[in-house]
Amino acid sequence: MTHPIDRHAFDISARIRAVQPPIIPIVAEMIRDNPGTISLGQGVVYYDPPGEIARGVARFMESPANHRYQPVEGVAELRAALGAKLATENGINTRDSEVVVTAGSNMGFFNAILAICDPGDEVILLTPWYFNHEMAIGIAGCRAVSVPTDEGFQPDPAAIAARITERTRAVVTISPNNPTGAVYEREVLDEVNDLCREHGIFHIHDEAYEYFLHDGAQHYSPASREASKGHTISLYSLSKTFSLASWRIGYMLIPPHLLDSVRKIQDTNVICPPVVSQYAALEAMRLGRAWCQPMIERITGVREHLYEQLATVPGVVPNSARGAFYVFLNLPEAKRTDLDIVRALVTDYRVAAIPGSAFGVDEGCYLRVSYGALEPETARQGIDRLCEGLRVLARS
Amino acid sequence: MTHPIDRHAFDISARIRAVQPPIIPIVAEMIRDNPGTISLGQGVVYYDPPGEIARGVARFMESPANHRYQPVEGVAELRAALGAKLATENGINTRDSEVVVTAGSNMGFFNAILAICDPGDEVILLTPWYFNHEMAIGIAGCRAVSVPTDEGFQPDPAAIAARITERTRAVVTISPNNPTGAVYEREVLDEVNDLCREHGIFHIHDEAYEYFLHDGAQHYSPASREASKGHTISLYSLSKTFSLASWRIGYMLIPPHLLDSVRKIQDTNVICPPVVSQYAALEAMRLGRAWCQPMIERITGVREHLYEQLATVPGVVPNSARGAFYVFLNLPEAKRTDLDIVRALVTDYRVAAIPGSAFGVDEGCYLRVSYGALEPETARQGIDRLCEGLRVLARS
Repeated sequence: MTHPIDRHAFDISARIRAVQPPIIPIVAEMIRDNPGTISLGQGVVYYDPPGEIARGVARFMESPANHRYQPVEGVAELRAALGAKLATENGINTRDSEVVVTAGSNMGFFNAILAICDPGDEVILLTPWYFNHEMAIGIAGCRAVSVPTDEGFQPDPAAIAARITERTRAVVTISPNNPTGAVYEREVLDEVNDLCREHGIFHIHDEAYEYFLHDGAQHYSPASREASKGHTISLYSLSKTFSLASWRIGYMLIPPHLLDSVRKIQDTNVICPPVVSQYAALEAMRLGRAWCQPMIERITGVREHLYEQLATVPGVVPNSARGAFYVFLNLPEAKRTDLDIVRALVTDYRVAAIPGSAFGVDEGCYLRVSYGALEPETARQGIDRLCEGLRVLARS
Repeated sequence: MTHPIDRHAFDISARIRAVQPPIIPIVAEMIRDNPGTISLGQGVVYYDPPGEIARGVARFMESPANHRYQPVEGVAELRAALGAKLATENGINTRDSEVVVTAGSNMGFFNAILAICDPGDEVILLTPWYFNHEMAIGIAGCRAVSVPTDEGFQPDPAAIAARITERTRAVVTISPNNPTGAVYEREVLDEVNDLCREHGIFHIHDEAYEYFLHDGAQHYSPASREASKGHTISLYSLSKTFSLASWRIGYMLIPPHLLDSVRKIQDTNVICPPVVSQYAALEAMRLGRAWCQPMIERITGVREHLYEQLATVPGVVPNSARGAFYVFLNLPEAKRTDLDIVRALVTDYRVAAIPGSAFGVDEGCYLRVSYGALEPETARQGIDRLCEGLRVLARS
């Protein structure tokens, strides 16, 4: 990774050359080239943010001082609101941790990696992983070590333990999961959290999809355990729950001894999260989870249609995804690559999904289907196109 | 830097431990502890952003699609407006380069370092440097190599050339300069730009203060030279010129072969710059430089008062700063450290400045005075307090 001898004048860095091109823009380009395509690709929600955020923007605009830099770790009022939410909803005793507002949850992850990893260090990701996690680790000059999940896409603590070395700095989990929609069992998360503590490494746990639960699934935050305090980094986002994707607001809960480090990193990277967005986020937090619930119930309805339709397609094995708005389809009889199948879906059936290989799955043929990004009626139409396409493509 | 053996369980990374604590929050805390202190510390402008940005926010809110992720490199309309500005004002032929919107100019710098440097690589900074540049290099796992500027704080091309090794990836210049306010001479910038090209390395040039010119100084963009195209990275900001600091909008102009790399990095870090801020920035760009001009003229007036007053203080040698809103004071007879002097200024005279050591100056005693952050009347009062304090502190 650091062999200057291989480099030519004005070359890009080896660390960036090794990073896969982001898949979302690649699929987006296919969609642009095929007008009328329904996208079951990007991970966004179909609904708009609450109208109340306008009140937050108005409040922001009232005070000229708000246009100046504000605290690196976020404005105090928002941090307090987020802390209260974590205490009430996630059962976390936030007195022993620090809330840091980030310009989106990806930044929270990047902050975490830079704060705890040196170049050459290893971070364990469970496959299928979230591609931006893998990219962040590479960009930080570190090495992502992939450990497969089990058949139900649940973490396999023994397999994880087997891959911990003296260079390992963290294990990353995501629940509800992107890209599989799996909701990790509490016992398994606790086991991973214990494993990390015993090995003196961090547990980074991403909860961006915490409200997106179906079929009776329950959300669980490992940071709610007393024993997790010193080594657990939890990541949250308002991009999905409150549909504030373009506003770039997420937050992280970190052990206090990481606060100064995260401050240094964030100061250097973004100085402070956009303050107008923080005021919008504050209004969203006032509304709380109750505002999101009816929106998410409609997504649950779409999910039912998706599973009903998929059951009629030979050669397609969907996983049991009880969270987020993703299903990870296994196409065990497919004869072409996942990317070729996605291309054919877009070109011939005007529907898009994301190839499984973008999530580090290098064996078999998988697709991630995102069913939360469209008005339920359009989503149903997209699902019908997908199933029509897969009826042919899954076995040819 | 990467010796796992030195590390304890749950330690922060060595790269972050090596990064100096950001000075701004340290001085901010002194100010909070001493109410009534006038700050000549932080680099912000005294004026508010144009009221027209409210129209940009309203336009943003009109379209629900705007709440979703937008292009990683910025919305097309803003990129076009920035490109037109670079062509008209900076004389840059932007057809051979790419404009990327960033969540502030610091992010532009971090993007650049990650795109071109691997861990262990070297980047040449001129001292006094801008602290966030030095921090970004360390956080990227690279090494900042300090090369002193000359007595007028101008770059010394021969000294720079002497420090280029096979690990060097870039030379960084800032003009008008933070922290010295020096406006680099065109010939010197061209010489640095040529030097970089000849060595096959990049020239990163920060122009955040391009409109802040005094005393007949002219701004010059090295990217306007045809010969600069393949290796010059130019950084810009709306934080100072349009007072949009908390909105987090800057932009970078890069050689086309870096675009995919910067996209990967930005996608992983922030996904896209905050879109509401991009719409605000678009309104600012419509107003253009003409809007900033009268605001900046008032800063020029404060600068005159500052120089008049400093001339009456024995033991204080201000540099000839014709740009930005900084003066870098040399206190050759001081008997205590710069940080002690700042502490005494705050405690005993209720005025704050930034110690020179925060900018990598480890010999002598210097202070950075920022005179653009306050209403001219308050700034004058702060300057008078500063001179009163330095009359004692500069020689004791």
